[in-house]
Amino acid sequence: MDGQAAERAMRAAIAAASGAHGRTSPNPPVGAVITAPDGRVAGTGATAPPGGSHAEVLALRAAGERARGGTAFVTLEPCAHQGRTPPCTAALADAGVAAVHYAVADPNPLAAGGAEVLRANGIEVRGGLLAEEVRSGVLRAWLHRTRTGRPHVTWKYASTLDGRVAAADGTSRWISGERSRAEVHALRRTADAIVAGTGTVRVDDPWLTARDPDGGLAGRQPLRVVVGTGDLPPGARVLDDSAETIHLRTRDPGEVLDVLGGRGVVDVLLEGGPTVAGAFAAAGRIDRILAYLAPMLLGAGPVALGAAGVSTITGAHRWTVEEVTMSGDDVRIAAVPAATGA
Amino acid sequence: MDGQAAERAMRAAIAAASGAHGRTSPNPPVGAVITAPDGRVAGTGATAPPGGSHAEVLALRAAGERARGGTAFVTLEPCAHQGRTPPCTAALADAGVAAVHYAVADPNPLAAGGAEVLRANGIEVRGGLLAEEVRSGVLRAWLHRTRTGRPHVTWKYASTLDGRVAAADGTSRWISGERSRAEVHALRRTADAIVAGTGTVRVDDPWLTARDPDGGLAGRQPLRVVVGTGDLPPGARVLDDSAETIHLRTRDPGEVLDVLGGRGVVDVLLEGGPTVAGAFAAAGRIDRILAYLAPMLLGAGPVALGAAGVSTITGAHRWTVEEVTMSGDDVRIAAVPAATGA
Repeated sequence: MDGQAAERAMRAAIAAASGAHGRTSPNPPVGAVITAPDGRVAGTGATAPPGGSHAEVLALRAAGERARGGTAFVTLEPCAHQGRTPPCTAALADAGVAAVHYAVADPNPLAAGGAEVLRANGIEVRGGLLAEEVRSGVLRAWLHRTRTGRPHVTWKYASTLDGRVAAADGTSRWISGERSRAEVHALRRTADAIVAGTGTVRVDDPWLTARDPDGGLAGRQPLRVVVGTGDLPPGARVLDDSAETIHLRTRDPGEVLDVLGGRGVVDVLLEGGPTVAGAFAAAGRIDRILAYLAPMLLGAGPVALGAAGVSTITGAHRWTVEEVTMSGDDVRIAAVPAATGA
Repeated sequence: MDGQAAERAMRAAIAAASGAHGRTSPNPPVGAVITAPDGRVAGTGATAPPGGSHAEVLALRAAGERARGGTAFVTLEPCAHQGRTPPCTAALADAGVAAVHYAVADPNPLAAGGAEVLRANGIEVRGGLLAEEVRSGVLRAWLHRTRTGRPHVTWKYASTLDGRVAAADGTSRWISGERSRAEVHALRRTADAIVAGTGTVRVDDPWLTARDPDGGLAGRQPLRVVVGTGDLPPGARVLDDSAETIHLRTRDPGEVLDVLGGRGVVDVLLEGGPTVAGAFAAAGRIDRILAYLAPMLLGAGPVALGAAGVSTITGAHRWTVEEVTMSGDDVRIAAVPAATGA
């Protein structure tokens, strides 16, 4: 199989993984594609919800006998670990695949070592194919959680070019364009939890639900998490029955993430407001920024980020821009914490 | 001459024009390249300061007899107008050039008609080569002034991702990176005037001078314009002798631009602060935004734009993003007023 065909197969595995993103936590969203000896796709699979099968097993099941002598493309190194499900390495060896290509090595000491086990079974193994795409994409949050023990936090905000998240009278519909709002719903569909402050709930009364492109409620909803010491107004939309909601009476990001981590949350979408975002920034608990800047000027109104523990320019929180793209008419900036050299 | 060679010659003409940008107002910065019949560059010229020769004349002078039967590449349609200098159309015809390619047609009714005069002289004429590049680049301000009668205003600001132009204690050195600061000095070198408010002068005490890449004062300095009703502190750096400074005791952008237009200013760089920028935005007198967004979060401190006459979201000033690029580690956004359909 040539390099282009291998990349194509791995991209299909990534697409399968993306389809499972948001339904697998605390397990990683993994995708697998099995190609038959003639190079054709014989089976595709993605991690089932917790307790269900791993991607490799589902792909092998779909491929049946065509897997024998074929190649498996998996976004994460197959596990050699007996958990709630048997190790995938055994399933791959039993099915008689000749080669396994994976994107990212498993950093989890319990599950790692899959490549060695496969090689010991006479299977050709290669790692690293499209690794960066997987690492910064569908597995980003899970890898972060595995490395740090904490859920991964994406702070998303939409502001005008001059940094306002609403006009002087509080109106903000719509600052970001249609395309950006659709992207935010896609983000929510892959998140395990959405966090907002009591202030935002009082002022904006958001639903904090994930919607499908047709506007209907998505089949799976992230946990809605309201943080802050204030009370929630009775009748607040986050209290409706479209998704589970918890209210954590703290503003301490560490406490919030401990509670969420304990519930198996891996991927957190922080949606504001300024007080909560400032607390997370001050605590160094924002792992990615997604800023949607709308080409507007307001000249008045609230800004996205409140007090973040910085009083002078040398104390600024420093970031590295990872990607800048257009999202419809808006500018979308993705940034990650600057390497500190620490 | 093939299309690629023609583009190369026009690019050389644009480069010559850019070298004159900032030294020609109220005349347009134009570049001209003459190629000999064998296609080689025979002469290059750019508009001299007011009262001096036009680009075509200088390029023809450099080319001498090699211009005969050759081609002229000019960024602006050659003038057919007897002003302080004789019409360029006559010079081109006298030199015996066989063809003239220009980028942008002259919108000035006094000078226009050059293409017709050239054709009447048996010269082959083509317009439009790299027109968009010239229109949105080196001739942008001059075309605007010709169309509207007003100087062109670029509002430049540097802020953090969260929209701050300084930290809570007022410190702002350096929010933008080295590359962005170098770009701003390049902008200043091509500007006819730099505008800032009395508040900025009091708080930041800027020099508002253009510096060369080596850090020395540029040979030509834009006019420094301080606007606002407050007094300038004695000893303010804008009052030093490195460039001319005027203080206009008004905050009305229309009045400011009338005075500057009367002085032959075409290209204005508005550098803040928030009060002045807000007044220009409110008056619809910002023609381009250049935002340098540094990958930092501050969570407190002043923002770039003050009151701009907007109280609710539907009244927001709307822009169109023209270009987004990285400037070192910063994101540089260029935007122009959204087409209103009016």
